[in-house]
Amino acid sequence: MTNWNEIDAKVKQWLREAGDNIRKSFTETLDIQTKSNPNDLVTNMDKATEQFFIEKIKQNYPDHSILGEEGFGDKLESLDGVVWIIDPIDGTMNFIYQQRHFAISIGIFENGIGRLGYIYDVAHDELYFAEKGKGAFLNGKPLKKLAPVKVEEAIIALNSTWLVQNRRMDPKPLISLAQTVRGTRSYGTAALEFAYVAAGILDGYITMRLSPWDFAAGKILVEETGGIVTNLKGEPLNLLENNTIFVAKPGLHTEIMERFLQNI
Amino acid sequence: MTNWNEIDAKVKQWLREAGDNIRKSFTETLDIQTKSNPNDLVTNMDKATEQFFIEKIKQNYPDHSILGEEGFGDKLESLDGVVWIIDPIDGTMNFIYQQRHFAISIGIFENGIGRLGYIYDVAHDELYFAEKGKGAFLNGKPLKKLAPVKVEEAIIALNSTWLVQNRRMDPKPLISLAQTVRGTRSYGTAALEFAYVAAGILDGYITMRLSPWDFAAGKILVEETGGIVTNLKGEPLNLLENNTIFVAKPGLHTEIMERFLQNI
Repeated sequence: MTNWNEIDAKVKQWLREAGDNIRKSFTETLDIQTKSNPNDLVTNMDKATEQFFIEKIKQNYPDHSILGEEGFGDKLESLDGVVWIIDPIDGTMNFIYQQRHFAISIGIFENGIGRLGYIYDVAHDELYFAEKGKGAFLNGKPLKKLAPVKVEEAIIALNSTWLVQNRRMDPKPLISLAQTVRGTRSYGTAALEFAYVAAGILDGYITMRLSPWDFAAGKILVEETGGIVTNLKGEPLNLLENNTIFVAKPGLHTEIMERFLQNI
Repeated sequence: MTNWNEIDAKVKQWLREAGDNIRKSFTETLDIQTKSNPNDLVTNMDKATEQFFIEKIKQNYPDHSILGEEGFGDKLESLDGVVWIIDPIDGTMNFIYQQRHFAISIGIFENGIGRLGYIYDVAHDELYFAEKGKGAFLNGKPLKKLAPVKVEEAIIALNSTWLVQNRRMDPKPLISLAQTVRGTRSYGTAALEFAYVAAGILDGYITMRLSPWDFAAGKILVEETGGIVTNLKGEPLNLLENNTIFVAKPGLHTEIMERFLQNI
């Protein structure tokens, strides 16, 4: 029988330790490399942080599986058993350029069901945390259940990439949405954009392509506060593949699906 | 002879006091009204904070002039003498929705020359401050002089409003810019977007319409770290009128002007 309380206590301790190490690195020179393209960056701290968590998990829970952004985890083909999905630094570009607006993201699943989700805004020392069925919290303070909002009064996270010609989709439906909402924001970190929706700081978030480690923890957090997490067709996310992403408060999700995303 | 050290000490004390009052208001119900349009919001805290500063300034410096967003200051027709330009809460929509990502902005000018600039991120307790000729600081720590960056490696603040059809400009040049830079961000607060450029957190910031209180302090801050502050035609800003805004690191400003903004 999995002892979730014990796991939770350990993860919070590890997050504090990893956060301290990242904050210390602010004064050091980073080793920066590119991955799939010139704007897909990785640093020594992304790698060291992922290795730190993997070592801790393997030591304490040798029968758990791990999917990590930097590839030090397992090659997963199913979600059977307990699976940790980790992004050691979500928002690496922000981490490099800004030393803020990035997060450690950890989602823990049991047979595909999200049990514990953590998004830790390291620079501001803010931990967003949810446990399935027991609520979501920001630094220990309970987050409220999300209340509906009309699209004309909504603030959503939407990067300009998806409003100009791009290789993923025809931007017209999102242009129409951007012209209808009260405002758009873009922070450059999927994990924090999910966390902001969970905390009611944003009403929704749309993006064209995220990997499982970008949204695993966020999905658990948003669902625990009553938000809806799907792809752009309104279907459930696949935790083993890249997905389009549409996250919103309950009524808002339906309204945007019906008015703007029908023909995507 | 103006005693700038004394003024600086007083402003910092007043900012702490005003910040405490705003943070206290987070647990109270706001009185929200609209101004020029349904998305132009003002709260009792915007008004109370502006009145707080005006009272302090009038008491201590009765011969200074004040231009304030909420209209409790003077009707200014010139920049003669010492002029305070104040936005009590820049990012009112964020203040209401997010209780973060807003700032108190105060710029103090002498015969049109910026002398002291303050942008106070209340929620994160971060004070960006500059004194002309003496440097810029974040919570007392000196900010570095801004180094040039290429447009392909730049992260700029650019709201999606200006990338879709709008009543201020043809979006094509900015679409092209958005497709060329490494990334765009949007935080919904002009004052903090200026402060982020001053602090090197962003490489540039473009927007179509700001009032003097939105950019007065930011201009002083960015110029003190070596950044360039103009309108979209590359001309100096008019401190008594609305302006288009283009702020960037030194070399980047020239490159974007030449490659993207020639035909605006």
